[in-house]
Amino acid sequence: MSVGSGLELKLVEAKNASLALGNAPSELKNQALKIASDAILERKEEILSSNRVDLEFAKVLLERREINKSLFDRLKLDEAKVEEIAKMVSSVADLEDPVGRVLYSIKMDEGLELFKVSVPFGVIVSIFESRPDALPQIAALCIKSGNSVVLKGGAEARASNRKIFEIMKDSFTKAGLPEGCMQLVEEREAVGALLKMEGYVDLIIPRGSNEFVKYIQENTRIPVLGHSSGICHVYVDSKADLSKAIKICLDARIQYPAACNSMKILLVDRGIAEAFLPAVSRFLIEEGVRIKGCPETKELLSRFGVAVDEADESDWTTEYLDLTLPVKIVSDIEEAISHINRYGSKHTDAIITEDLANARKFITSIDSSSVFHNASTRFSDGYRYGLGAEVGISTNKIHARGPVGLEGLVTTKWILLGSGQVVSDYVGKKAKPFLHRKTDPDWEERLK
Amino acid sequence: MSVGSGLELKLVEAKNASLALGNAPSELKNQALKIASDAILERKEEILSSNRVDLEFAKVLLERREINKSLFDRLKLDEAKVEEIAKMVSSVADLEDPVGRVLYSIKMDEGLELFKVSVPFGVIVSIFESRPDALPQIAALCIKSGNSVVLKGGAEARASNRKIFEIMKDSFTKAGLPEGCMQLVEEREAVGALLKMEGYVDLIIPRGSNEFVKYIQENTRIPVLGHSSGICHVYVDSKADLSKAIKICLDARIQYPAACNSMKILLVDRGIAEAFLPAVSRFLIEEGVRIKGCPETKELLSRFGVAVDEADESDWTTEYLDLTLPVKIVSDIEEAISHINRYGSKHTDAIITEDLANARKFITSIDSSSVFHNASTRFSDGYRYGLGAEVGISTNKIHARGPVGLEGLVTTKWILLGSGQVVSDYVGKKAKPFLHRKTDPDWEERLK
Repeated sequence: MSVGSGLELKLVEAKNASLALGNAPSELKNQALKIASDAILERKEEILSSNRVDLEFAKVLLERREINKSLFDRLKLDEAKVEEIAKMVSSVADLEDPVGRVLYSIKMDEGLELFKVSVPFGVIVSIFESRPDALPQIAALCIKSGNSVVLKGGAEARASNRKIFEIMKDSFTKAGLPEGCMQLVEEREAVGALLKMEGYVDLIIPRGSNEFVKYIQENTRIPVLGHSSGICHVYVDSKADLSKAIKICLDARIQYPAACNSMKILLVDRGIAEAFLPAVSRFLIEEGVRIKGCPETKELLSRFGVAVDEADESDWTTEYLDLTLPVKIVSDIEEAISHINRYGSKHTDAIITEDLANARKFITSIDSSSVFHNASTRFSDGYRYGLGAEVGISTNKIHARGPVGLEGLVTTKWILLGSGQVVSDYVGKKAKPFLHRKTDPDWEERLK
Repeated sequence: MSVGSGLELKLVEAKNASLALGNAPSELKNQALKIASDAILERKEEILSSNRVDLEFAKVLLERREINKSLFDRLKLDEAKVEEIAKMVSSVADLEDPVGRVLYSIKMDEGLELFKVSVPFGVIVSIFESRPDALPQIAALCIKSGNSVVLKGGAEARASNRKIFEIMKDSFTKAGLPEGCMQLVEEREAVGALLKMEGYVDLIIPRGSNEFVKYIQENTRIPVLGHSSGICHVYVDSKADLSKAIKICLDARIQYPAACNSMKILLVDRGIAEAFLPAVSRFLIEEGVRIKGCPETKELLSRFGVAVDEADESDWTTEYLDLTLPVKIVSDIEEAISHINRYGSKHTDAIITEDLANARKFITSIDSSSVFHNASTRFSDGYRYGLGAEVGISTNKIHARGPVGLEGLVTTKWILLGSGQVVSDYVGKKAKPFLHRKTDPDWEERLK
């Protein structure tokens, strides 16, 4: 059988299973997740031994410099990490079920009631790179939200992925979830085929590098949940509190440099530049940050004995995931706003100021998914936002924007319960009026 | 100046205006709509005289058979229609403002509060065919929801569109809305260019034939709000009440045959076929409906002296906008469900039955944006659903599904108001816990 037809079979199975899974009660889904969590703990040794196979292989690639050290490190599991995975899977069971919420319920007329209800998407495909903890997390979130899931992991974690998949799938089957609701795809060539499977796939969740996510976004007509880059700005306004500004800039750049929500560009108001830049630069440089300044920044710092590289135009759109930091002096808040709206990636941007009118202006004018006042951009995260679990961060404006919790994995369906009504009675000169009155949301009760 | 650069200028103006418009208070937007409504009434004669220019031109096209009679009819305005347009624009002012709703507000910690707020998309492009009432409706809805709007109408209604545009634009400027928030594009070649303007355009709303909407959907990476076809089914279950079933089938097929939510395919359970089909056919045929039956339907009807054409495979996916009706006998509800999920367009599907368990099964198993029990598919409509105004009907699963009201023209933004917090205090061994407690949603109050 070719890759294509084998793949299609998996998707047909996933699609068929999605109907039953979408209507599975919360208790069943939660029990399945708890069984999977227990099984991961019990079969820890199997997982670690599969992971060793991947590591042996990766070691060779590392020696050949085909992969880098950080990818190698992310690949490695140990007892503690496997325990964390088991705990994470179990914690998804404790989240509120996003399916079956009634978001709108009205009586259109006597015996004619309308409900808008949250329902799963159907089939979600997730394509991710290396990290063996991606698979159990995505699978748990999809199953919890009633979606069949098709998983395509990276070749580096093949043995680990296969083992964790096998353990979870067995657990789900044992718990009584529909067969076929979880599928693993291993062939690299399958990615291209998956991106074209519009008839089967309702949503794609990519996890990986910017280039990887961007490739997925640009090569499919299926909706993609995610973001390709995080060009996050901190703008230090002329009315900023200097110690807050320094503290926030340090946290935003160095606390986790490779995160999508770390500060990538620092904008400083000319009115505070002399007071702020020499001080913050000293702290940043002490922490290993390499500053690249606009000509004015460079000149100013050199007057204070600090030598920095010069930033060029490309720096304003580069997402430095190391400790590099382009810095630009701006004339005023307007220039800061237009710079961010022009060069940013609409992820997360912050203003540091004690001037509340400026804070308000920044918040209402910046066209990004998250805008902060006097706080580090690093707070932009589903767990920190209290969403329970983070499915991803979306910089799209449709469906879900910013950090996305389980609600990002469901859509809605309209249900109209009538007793023989026809539209012709509600149009024309003798039209019956619609009531449009709020009604009890329990639609299932009406069908008992 | 080439079409391209002239067009880009309009989009830059629209984008620039969108910032101020997005923050305009409801009163200002409503006043602008009321002024526009009054001006449309006052300048009725100008509109009618422009419309006559279009009609003269269309008459020639009609004689040459380059357009059909129904397009010609849709083009024609009279006093009553202009008054309706004025009333519609004014009624949009009375709708609730979808902007600025706080959908989530929590205290992450003392002095660190998070809000999720509805905000406009930014710039909406609408591309529509003929009907001169499309322009004022779309423009009113976009302005109400705080979005700049770029309008591209069909060549047939060029003079009418230009006049209505001019009147509304003047009114908006007079009211104090930002210049440039409403743009008109007339060149046919501009469509291709508009579809590529990802940097400026946040959403596209097409209005027109299926082929037209499908073309737009397949030729842009900008999100499109709409649906290309309405293959809506009515399934008459074996436990259907016959008189309800007949009444609903007649309404669903004949009340407005060309509507996207009219019944396009009738599925009948074998258990009720003999009792139902001869009766319903008589009524349908009396109303001018041309039935195309599956072989079993054809054979059954012929036994009752009713001769019908035979349906072929392509009929199950054809959206007949006239009085044609393909009919298929199915073995049971399972076959009905799989037929609908396979051939339907996920728009609106109805089951007619007195068996509540079957109603429930149908509702939870059909993967469409609207699913009905004992009611005509024709109810699938934003006004009837009580949404106030209908922006369109979406058969996508992301962002908005089914009939979409003004809420489909807004997205959300996360606002975090801090007092100098950094993430490093909330991670590691001595991590401060998050409170995640509900808080007063009035974020603007905090910045006063």
